[in-house]
Amino acid sequence: MYLFRNDYSFAAHPQVLEAVARSSAEGNPGYGFDPHCEHAAALIRELAQAPKADVSFFIGGTSVNFTAIAAFLRPWEGVFCPHSGHVNGHESGAVEATGHKLLPLPAGPDGKLRPEQIEAAYPTYQDVHLVLPRLVYISQATETGGVYTKAELEALSAVCQKLHLFLFVDGARLGCALTSEGCDVTVADLARLTDAFTIGGTKNGALMGEALVIPDPALAEGLFRIKKQRGAVLAKGWLLGAQFEALLTDGLYFDLARHSNAMAQRLQSGLAEKGFSFAFPSPTNQIFPILPDQLLPELEKICAFEVWGPGPEVGQTVIRLVASFGTTEDDVEGLLQHFPTK
Amino acid sequence: MYLFRNDYSFAAHPQVLEAVARSSAEGNPGYGFDPHCEHAAALIRELAQAPKADVSFFIGGTSVNFTAIAAFLRPWEGVFCPHSGHVNGHESGAVEATGHKLLPLPAGPDGKLRPEQIEAAYPTYQDVHLVLPRLVYISQATETGGVYTKAELEALSAVCQKLHLFLFVDGARLGCALTSEGCDVTVADLARLTDAFTIGGTKNGALMGEALVIPDPALAEGLFRIKKQRGAVLAKGWLLGAQFEALLTDGLYFDLARHSNAMAQRLQSGLAEKGFSFAFPSPTNQIFPILPDQLLPELEKICAFEVWGPGPEVGQTVIRLVASFGTTEDDVEGLLQHFPTK
Amino acid sequence: MYLFRNDYSFAAHPQVLEAVARSSAEGNPGYGFDPHCEHAAALIRELAQAPKADVSFFIGGTSVNFTAIAAFLRPWEGVFCPHSGHVNGHESGAVEATGHKLLPLPAGPDGKLRPEQIEAAYPTYQDVHLVLPRLVYISQATETGGVYTKAELEALSAVCQKLHLFLFVDGARLGCALTSEGCDVTVADLARLTDAFTIGGTKNGALMGEALVIPDPALAEGLFRIKKQRGAVLAKGWLLGAQFEALLTDGLYFDLARHSNAMAQRLQSGLAEKGFSFAFPSPTNQIFPILPDQLLPELEKICAFEVWGPGPEVGQTVIRLVASFGTTEDDVEGLLQHFPTK
Amino acid sequence: MYLFRNDYSFAAHPQVLEAVARSSAEGNPGYGFDPHCEHAAALIRELAQAPKADVSFFIGGTSVNFTAIAAFLRPWEGVFCPHSGHVNGHESGAVEATGHKLLPLPAGPDGKLRPEQIEAAYPTYQDVHLVLPRLVYISQATETGGVYTKAELEALSAVCQKLHLFLFVDGARLGCALTSEGCDVTVADLARLTDAFTIGGTKNGALMGEALVIPDPALAEGLFRIKKQRGAVLAKGWLLGAQFEALLTDGLYFDLARHSNAMAQRLQSGLAEKGFSFAFPSPTNQIFPILPDQLLPELEKICAFEVWGPGPEVGQTVIRLVASFGTTEDDVEGLLQHFPTK
Repeated sequence: MYLFRNDYSFAAHPQVLEAVARSSAEGNPGYGFDPHCEHAAALIRELAQAPKADVSFFIGGTSVNFTAIAAFLRPWEGVFCPHSGHVNGHESGAVEATGHKLLPLPAGPDGKLRPEQIEAAYPTYQDVHLVLPRLVYISQATETGGVYTKAELEALSAVCQKLHLFLFVDGARLGCALTSEGCDVTVADLARLTDAFTIGGTKNGALMGEALVIPDPALAEGLFRIKKQRGAVLAKGWLLGAQFEALLTDGLYFDLARHSNAMAQRLQSGLAEKGFSFAFPSPTNQIFPILPDQLLPELEKICAFEVWGPGPEVGQTVIRLVASFGTTEDDVEGLLQHFPTK
Repeated sequence: MYLFRNDYSFAAHPQVLEAVARSSAEGNPGYGFDPHCEHAAALIRELAQAPKADVSFFIGGTSVNFTAIAAFLRPWEGVFCPHSGHVNGHESGAVEATGHKLLPLPAGPDGKLRPEQIEAAYPTYQDVHLVLPRLVYISQATETGGVYTKAELEALSAVCQKLHLFLFVDGARLGCALTSEGCDVTVADLARLTDAFTIGGTKNGALMGEALVIPDPALAEGLFRIKKQRGAVLAKGWLLGAQFEALLTDGLYFDLARHSNAMAQRLQSGLAEKGFSFAFPSPTNQIFPILPDQLLPELEKICAFEVWGPGPEVGQTVIRLVASFGTTEDDVEGLLQHFPTK
Repeated sequence: MYLFRNDYSFAAHPQVLEAVARSSAEGNPGYGFDPHCEHAAALIRELAQAPKADVSFFIGGTSVNFTAIAAFLRPWEGVFCPHSGHVNGHESGAVEATGHKLLPLPAGPDGKLRPEQIEAAYPTYQDVHLVLPRLVYISQATETGGVYTKAELEALSAVCQKLHLFLFVDGARLGCALTSEGCDVTVADLARLTDAFTIGGTKNGALMGEALVIPDPALAEGLFRIKKQRGAVLAKGWLLGAQFEALLTDGLYFDLARHSNAMAQRLQSGLAEKGFSFAFPSPTNQIFPILPDQLLPELEKICAFEVWGPGPEVGQTVIRLVASFGTTEDDVEGLLQHFPTK
Repeated sequence: MYLFRNDYSFAAHPQVLEAVARSSAEGNPGYGFDPHCEHAAALIRELAQAPKADVSFFIGGTSVNFTAIAAFLRPWEGVFCPHSGHVNGHESGAVEATGHKLLPLPAGPDGKLRPEQIEAAYPTYQDVHLVLPRLVYISQATETGGVYTKAELEALSAVCQKLHLFLFVDGARLGCALTSEGCDVTVADLARLTDAFTIGGTKNGALMGEALVIPDPALAEGLFRIKKQRGAVLAKGWLLGAQFEALLTDGLYFDLARHSNAMAQRLQSGLAEKGFSFAFPSPTNQIFPILPDQLLPELEKICAFEVWGPGPEVGQTVIRLVASFGTTEDDVEGLLQHFPTK
């Protein structure tokens, strides 16, 4: 079987596994108050050029998203997000379960929110019978593989500042976004332009783990207590620190992401050469080919993938193929050979 | 340094680490829908003699406690627990954050709740201006190392059935309880007598992981959705399954617990021989010696431990010493030598 | 000033005020456990031909909506509603504040949800990473004055039964809906076709008060406790019962609603005669004329109304004019005279 | 029947009822944005000597308590309260339903919290695995009729300031407290010494209504939105304003409270003269005589009262007798005659 279902089918890069094993017998303090977390946080602060940033480690994406949002907001405040955002469509109502209303806005096929949308939607909420929008949630990369440029982030950041909105970036696939072709955004840009962002480890070489970066530590007040309250504190917290240390050593994190992108893009080119087109333009590790329905039964036998939805024409289906740090060139070439030339 | 601060200072037993590493490149499905979780669940069902039980895996104790409680209860329902229960005293208001009121009852120094307490407290809550008690939370072993006997669990179970209360057992230290000297309780007893219980991996040889066992699967309705909603679904869920597989192979889980108990009991006997007494009687891996305050500064230099509170007399302090799978006889003997004979 | 801003500008019909005053010195038991509430509930059960129905009284619409929804649902369950539904657009995130996700569906200009929409949306939510839809919220009449016919309600009810969804009808303006021209729905139909519905008093002659009717009393389990918990139990609960007794005596409730409709429809006809058109077709007590923007400044000086939004063409605005039990023919005729013939 | 069960058995003082009736046809704006609420708020600001205070009106005590607490706190923050406090014992877990943990402290028979208790309890919560105490809830008068002196409030206020805790006073029976014999506290003292307090109307002459006073308006940020969200905004909000206007005109509010106290104290003296003693010393409108059990069956036939709990000796019961604005001297004298001289 070719495994292109997602980017969390393989556990961890060998260097990450070794770091975990190495730490096993050290006898570390619990809950993230340990030298590994401290060192990993320092590496992230350096990368972010944000020497005062609060950096903490969470186990998974849903957990870090709703915990951070709940930590930042007051009960009457709501969240602008793209309709296709992970918090809206894939987290089983996690944000609402903390009591906050999501205010989804339609986004284009690239999954990106535009500042004009926020400016247009905001005035409605001056009506005090509604929640007050107070945070904008976006993802870098988006659910459909889109990547915000620096100019786009700067424009979003500006409108957020103007309207007194926090800007939160879900970086579950941050590595793939930042290493995608043409992307001019750095971790330091995120620290400069957002109120909080995550650096995803789960989908990029770690067993599990998302780093939450809050450039202004004042905003992190009470964060540990709410992490604990929401079940997000790992007893053996250094396991997260040790993994991020490994990922952030010698640029491993970005190398793995670059590899994932390269594999997906090679698959995309190969399919394009064979005449297939794509539902969304994606420069990252997820691609969305449009297939004639009759190809699916055969494909399912040899490849794990996800059905994304109906294609633009009757008889077509959009599927998602995802590459990860564990995908090989042989996987790509092997899979390509099963596709006919249209 | 002698490390007796807690039982989560060492990452994982080598066999567990190997299982994780072995699974790394397998390409497993996500979210716990994989062969490792399936097999680990089957092993647990067998151990529990509960062939229909719903078994799922969580990352940590706080997370499994509040998610299960929130899954079982309606909004107007509350939870009886010992005042010293982990949900009441160490989880940053996690149960209340799901909207449910805890109704703490005083427990003895062994941390155990007695059926008479529940029967005595229940009638008050027939007043419809109060929450309706619907679940009893206990721990096996308790926070102070106490262990319920089979007869005690049967009596609690009977009163719960009579009063239409769920019985939930937090088994963060279940291994140490069940292997403690004189304990006549088995996993199958728990499955027979409770509505849900956990089997703790974090404090007994796993990187992380608690198994939630719900003997009647009807009670597990909606459980995956609420797990996801509360951030408790691990993307690479098989990591939990693989660890429990390792722990449940050839009785490793119970061997590790037995070892932890033996180390702690040896320390306890040694201290008793030197004339020290103990705040709570504990047959498990946590012991609570009463020390003269003047010993503390010296002890802190060579040993990691926790101050539990003031001792029974002025000038005394109760400390907690915890042994784990990683504690050696040398650790115990070495530490003992630093204690004077009283 | 002509008062057409809403239907809660006048306190209460004289007979309702008298009933309140009469009850003042009686010395009633608190919290709704009194003869007035009992009698009012009996009158409603009779009207609903639902002899076992649970009937309770709430102070306001937001309160009864979210309390009932929170009482009915488990934490992982969500709510289908029209995008324009009151719970989604006018209640400051009240349902989300109870932890439940709303799943808004687009509705036509009449504000009505159609069974096909529910059937089309439902399958997506078989994905266990999403909330499970479990309740359909609709309003009778809708926010834009629309009224469901008996056939429409039967079709909705059928799809709800098929998909295991509760059907909840917000009847804040139930009187106006049921007495509107051409409406073939009765209170008994609602009891037969829904799981719960409200009978609004606030907008139809009461100081305040909404009756919640739950035809199958098994669904009302725990209701009083959650009412209390959400601040919805009035200490002097009989005040609500006494008002509903007055409203339900000799058909006063329906007479007031009929009057409100008549006044609004007269205004609508008058405006139509003058050449104005309307944003939504409304047979009830709210009408939505489309005005040229230049009329607004003058109108604001003599009439209280609400701006609903931009009209279909540039330079036009939709306004809302609402009649109530306190609106007189003189009000209508007087206001009409201020409108020019187009 | 003599009605001494509670202080909400009679609807409203005639002047309050008249104010409501008078306002009925005025055509007021909704939701509390009306001249009556504005005027009532101004009267309260004057009484409180707090010209900038935010004053808003709620329907009931549970509602105002949890809404204010939820508005003030962040998710990881908890509430010190007396174990006997209304929020802990009579509100069906309302505060916990907003996600916040109550941290009950034992109080004396007078129901009063002492600053030393707060100082002693606080340090425990520096442990970041616990919630952070951030608000102290007390009642004036307490559940057992106790009244804080000015010196006691000043001491509590000082410890709250020192520990960065909000001080919130539940004034459901504020009138009776402030007019009780020997009480040296004024409304202005409350405004000076607390962060928020309520002035209860429901138990002192109003149909319903509690005024929430927040001396520093910065703390009231977002309050209307959360009021709406929690179902606490009355559509016909002026009904609350009009009632408080009536109560605050010519000191009616305090006259009614003084009357309630006088009636209860007369009953207390009469019972004392007959040889009965009392469970708690109460200078307010609630008294707690200790009766031999054999008196109860006879008493129940002629008097509505509440059983408070077992008396200090076997065969004794503590009951609660409450006087209100509607209690007459004849009621008191008549009831007294039914008690034997011991």
